[in-house]
Amino acid sequence: MKVIIIGGVAGGASAAARLRRNDEKSEIILFERGEHISFANCGLPYYIGEVIRNEENLLVQTPEGMKKRFNIDVRVLSEVVRIHRETKEVEIYDRKNDKRYTESYDKLILSPGASPIKPDLEGVNAKNVFTLRNVPDTLSIKDYVDNEKPESAVVVGGGFIGLEIAENLKERGLDVKLVELSNQVLAPIDFEMAAIVQNYMKEKGIEFYLGDGLKGIKHNTGYSEVELNSGAKIEADMVVLGIGVRPEVSLAKDAGLELGERGGIKVDQTLKTSDSNIYAVGDAIEVIDYINGKQSLVPLAGPANKQGRIAADNVCGRNETYDGTQGTSVLKIFDMTVASTGNNEKLLRRFDIPYEKSYTHSASHASYYPGSSTISMKIIFSPEDGKVLGAQAVGFEGVEKRIDVLATAIRAGMTVYDLEKLELSYAPPYSSAKDPVNMAGYVASNILKGDNKVIHWDEIERLDKEESILVDVRTPMEYSLGTIEDAVNIPLDEMRNRLDEFPRDKKIIVFCKVGLRGYLALRILAQNGFKDVYNLSGGCSTYYPVIE
Amino acid sequence: MKVIIIGGVAGGASAAARLRRNDEKSEIILFERGEHISFANCGLPYYIGEVIRNEENLLVQTPEGMKKRFNIDVRVLSEVVRIHRETKEVEIYDRKNDKRYTESYDKLILSPGASPIKPDLEGVNAKNVFTLRNVPDTLSIKDYVDNEKPESAVVVGGGFIGLEIAENLKERGLDVKLVELSNQVLAPIDFEMAAIVQNYMKEKGIEFYLGDGLKGIKHNTGYSEVELNSGAKIEADMVVLGIGVRPEVSLAKDAGLELGERGGIKVDQTLKTSDSNIYAVGDAIEVIDYINGKQSLVPLAGPANKQGRIAADNVCGRNETYDGTQGTSVLKIFDMTVASTGNNEKLLRRFDIPYEKSYTHSASHASYYPGSSTISMKIIFSPEDGKVLGAQAVGFEGVEKRIDVLATAIRAGMTVYDLEKLELSYAPPYSSAKDPVNMAGYVASNILKGDNKVIHWDEIERLDKEESILVDVRTPMEYSLGTIEDAVNIPLDEMRNRLDEFPRDKKIIVFCKVGLRGYLALRILAQNGFKDVYNLSGGCSTYYPVIE
Ligand SMILES: Cc1cc2nc3c(=O)[nH]c(=O)nc-3n(C[C@H](O)[C@H](O)[C@H](O)COP(=O)(O)OP(=O)(O)OC[C@H]3O[C@@H](n4cnc5c(N)ncnc54)[C@H](O)[C@@H]3O)c2cc1C
Ligand SMILES: Cc1cc2nc3c(=O)[nH]c(=O)nc-3n(C[C@H](O)[C@H](O)[C@H](O)COP(=O)(O)OP(=O)(O)OC[C@H]3O[C@@H](n4cnc5c(N)ncnc54)[C@H](O)[C@@H]3O)c2cc1C
Ligand SMILES: CC(C)(COP(=O)(O)OP(=O)(O)OC[C@H]1O[C@@H](n2cnc3c(N)ncnc32)[C@H](O)[C@@H]1OP(=O)(O)O)[C@@H](O)C(=O)NCCC(=O)NCCS
Ligand SMILES: CC(C)(COP(=O)(O)OP(=O)(O)OC[C@H]1O[C@@H](n2cnc3c(N)ncnc32)[C@H](O)[C@@H]1OP(=O)(O)O)[C@@H](O)C(=O)NCCC(=O)NCCS
Repeated sequence: MKVIIIGGVAGGASAAARLRRNDEKSEIILFERGEHISFANCGLPYYIGEVIRNEENLLVQTPEGMKKRFNIDVRVLSEVVRIHRETKEVEIYDRKNDKRYTESYDKLILSPGASPIKPDLEGVNAKNVFTLRNVPDTLSIKDYVDNEKPESAVVVGGGFIGLEIAENLKERGLDVKLVELSNQVLAPIDFEMAAIVQNYMKEKGIEFYLGDGLKGIKHNTGYSEVELNSGAKIEADMVVLGIGVRPEVSLAKDAGLELGERGGIKVDQTLKTSDSNIYAVGDAIEVIDYINGKQSLVPLAGPANKQGRIAADNVCGRNETYDGTQGTSVLKIFDMTVASTGNNEKLLRRFDIPYEKSYTHSASHASYYPGSSTISMKIIFSPEDGKVLGAQAVGFEGVEKRIDVLATAIRAGMTVYDLEKLELSYAPPYSSAKDPVNMAGYVASNILKGDNKVIHWDEIERLDKEESILVDVRTPMEYSLGTIEDAVNIPLDEMRNRLDEFPRDKKIIVFCKVGLRGYLALRILAQNGFKDVYNLSGGCSTYYPVIE
Repeated sequence: MKVIIIGGVAGGASAAARLRRNDEKSEIILFERGEHISFANCGLPYYIGEVIRNEENLLVQTPEGMKKRFNIDVRVLSEVVRIHRETKEVEIYDRKNDKRYTESYDKLILSPGASPIKPDLEGVNAKNVFTLRNVPDTLSIKDYVDNEKPESAVVVGGGFIGLEIAENLKERGLDVKLVELSNQVLAPIDFEMAAIVQNYMKEKGIEFYLGDGLKGIKHNTGYSEVELNSGAKIEADMVVLGIGVRPEVSLAKDAGLELGERGGIKVDQTLKTSDSNIYAVGDAIEVIDYINGKQSLVPLAGPANKQGRIAADNVCGRNETYDGTQGTSVLKIFDMTVASTGNNEKLLRRFDIPYEKSYTHSASHASYYPGSSTISMKIIFSPEDGKVLGAQAVGFEGVEKRIDVLATAIRAGMTVYDLEKLELSYAPPYSSAKDPVNMAGYVASNILKGDNKVIHWDEIERLDKEESILVDVRTPMEYSLGTIEDAVNIPLDEMRNRLDEFPRDKKIIVFCKVGLRGYLALRILAQNGFKDVYNLSGGCSTYYPVIE
């Protein structure tokens, strides 16, 4: 068997290695347009930031290494420019020798990835305007920072890559401003969770232009001027565009392979394209969203590597399926960790999928043991059966652990009731006897069972002030340091003696710092005949970041 | 309704709080024999070690706090000395006022915990011999260290508490020796995994007496002498016994409640004892082992807290079940983390449950990003369907995360094939595109599918040297630094050209550092007609610690 692979990084190199393990005898040729294969895409921002100091560390494998270890014929600087499906051949442009030739295949695996979106706007092709996808891109940015010593940068795009670049440029001493068309950074998480991240980044000195888009860049002597749709103008020495990627589908399209509704290469569960001899994996393909079942583009390394392995298996006649992508992801931003899995509210709303949600703010480990910090967590679940649909968390320690547990729970089809029962490891340096994931389960279950009637952060401003009362059940000390507008203070621990201060003819909204004392207050009121009582989910810790 | 709770810490206090949330109107009395309720048992060793500096931090709640917040009548220094089931009364000995009285109940919840085992041996009652369960125990030990300034300690027992005490005394500057009857520390993990922990503890200066038991302690002026079964004698200034706990069942037994086969209080799935008005939770009860279905004693805080909540729910007529305990646990020992979940080999063998196992040694996060370390992981699974039965991990970063993911997978009944597909969060500071849990899934699946025929560390010394050959497939450099006895060196990357050096009439055992290159070597050999080839699972990284 002769297998040709197009693209030599996450999906492609993984497929090649697995192919060889499956089949020692087949001929495997891997074509890569660029100079490098198997590079650490995900490490690139950290090379710019000098966190990763050695360029060699970015190369996980080399063509020579792949030859020796896997007996794979790796051809770099070799772009596949055409697929001839009828003759089962590919046409290659050898960039080094400026030559064209063809190779035949029995099976073909496409892993061409995605390319950074570069909008067709004035000034984006100047030498101080960058995108970041591969090693050459990385070196250009780093060389520019090293040699031109820019003092300021504008990063356009508040996704993972944009934020990583912002952090790394900031760490290099630049003054960094971030422009994002949406009203929040990090699309995978929801607005109020992103607010926590933005506030922290502001503390770290990043300046934001949210809800504003790039209009063009004017280049003057000595500096550039970034113009935004709003009319705002930002001076900067360099600009990095991180506004998303587009699946690399031109080759597939030209060959007449079917594309999906989102513009990626269409594949079935075995990762086969519309041509039974051609498989496709990675950023270039459309996957099924594991939660909502719709087509989706999820450009992440974990899925790409796993898909590469599955495609290799199927090429070899092993029967493996890819069951969909949850979009589990994590980002380090300075000391903060932001992670999520499954669907967010925006997505569920788009597909009209009913959901309920809950917020918790739990200690990352037992608070009596030094060094704990708060994990702010949101889980989204089905109001019918409690099935977990998504989870988002922000904090400083143990954030990705909880999201990985929740990602596993989602994969298993667990409900919020199952989360209560998860037996997670506990010792004081690591967690609490009720892990934050258990706690999220309790809180969500209480909502579903009607034990905790919640109101959410965005409903507060829509309250009818005549018909409702806000009661801050925290201590007078906490209250005095700031509370929600118009709220009165009746501390939880005094409530049983002050029940007559609660009106019986109004909607009562109780709240505290995180929602726990509010819940206790609600329990007391509800069982004392107050019918119309709501607890602010997540308390001030969810409410404040949004209004800050 | 009047509910009485016996025991005011993990299970008892949790039950009390939940009871009140469920039912604002019932009368709840909580009896605690000791002076404190709601203390942080799990934090006690760290107070001795001065990691937790403030004694108050050990008290999560106080009787006054419980009164104010939950309107619970907490009576400390009040031992329940008898349960009169016929009249539904308990008899209390008020230790403060030296008085006895009775209280009636509608429902009773027992959470009396467990008591440290103190063997009936010479010298164990001296004032420099300690056990650790509660705050007074902690203060005695700490006072002794602070005031008597002991220079050396013997800790008897290599369980979690023994190791935590050993660490904390070591951190206080004492010379610490650890005695353990078994041939390994940490019973929840297996021998070869414990070897890694022991080697590390030795590096940290802890001296071990394994496979040796306490015979008695002689007290001389100025020092004590700990005598072991082997005849060994250890001089020490203090001794701490951490040889396990025994469920506190005397009260239940006297009242005629059924006990289980392991000696704990017997309960059904709703945590009801043999008396339908009495529930029991925590260290005192027998639970169903979630994996093997047998009765088990698992003295851990997570289960105790969760059971307290469930018992409270059932007392209030809510229908909640406790589905068994996996024994998920974690220990910090110096900088190292040891965690496990599910059954280990010892347990599975005892119950004749068939299993297969695999070892991996994966980077805690992308190795090109600074600061990664190795996680040594063992997973145990059913040879029939691949169901995960247990997992153990040792390392320095991200260990408990992987065990929590595996604990969730076990709870969901997942197989090793499911582990391959888990979509866990990846960015370079946190993991690899194939997370160590995915990797463990791949390796285990390959074993089950026959793609990777493994031999285990303990089979090496039983090999027939005439009939078999050991081939170290690492580099000549690695080989020169030490290898397994009698092994020859044929580096992986040269193998395809040196196939004639492999004998066709012998069993071939290939090995490398962690098992990966050995697997690749095996794939090459197997597909070149070599029939009898095995890869050393976990490679030298599993083999060496045992023989060290
Ligand atoms: C800066 C950065 C940071 C990232 N961080 C993370 C992270 O933290 N976590 C995460 O999960 N993901 C991250 N990603 C995403 C991740 O790298 C991708 O999802 C993954 O690499 C996709 O794999 P792939 O094989 O589809 O594409 P790629 O890895 O991009 O490989 C595609 C290759 O195909 C080559 N190619 C394309 N067309 C042709 C052709 N016609 N002929 C020959 N060769 C061709 C390209 O040159 C390219 O090298 C990051 C990406 C970037 C750029
Ligand atoms: C030093 C130490 C470290 C630990 N570390 C961890 C850890 O890191 N992780 C983990 O999961 N677990 C740990 N544990 C175990 C955990 O603390 C227990 O599993 C948990 O506390 C059990 O809860 P319980 O309610 O059953 O018993 P306890 O918490 O012990 O509470 C029982 C209470 O009942 C009282 N009592 C008993 N009989 C009577 C009576 N007749 N009348 C009145 N009162 C009575 C006792 O005085 C006691 O205070 C640790 C335990 C110790 C001692
Ligand atoms: C380098 C690269 C070619 C490696 O591919 P690979 O060989 O499939 O991956 P790994 O080196 O992680 O090895 C995994 C294999 O080793 C096996 N393995 C790992 N540890 C093992 C152990 N201890 N014992 C036995 N086998 C082991 C696994 O089972 C798996 O084999 P399988 O797929 O046949 O089941 C590819 O991952 C790559 O190019 N990576 C860089 C690009 C990239 O991923 N970028 C995005 C992220 S930055
Ligand atoms: C202190 C103690 C009495 C607290 O009991 P508790 O009130 O049940 O526990 P918590 O304070 O963690 O609160 C959990 C409750 O708050 C709710 N909650 C937590 N965060 C919330 C939030 N953000 N919004 C709404 N509700 C929230 C949970 O749903 C849960 O209520 P539920 O059980 O009715 O569902 C008990 O845990 C204890 O004594 N602990 C110390 C002893 C011990 O555990 N030792 C062993 C470990 S060291």
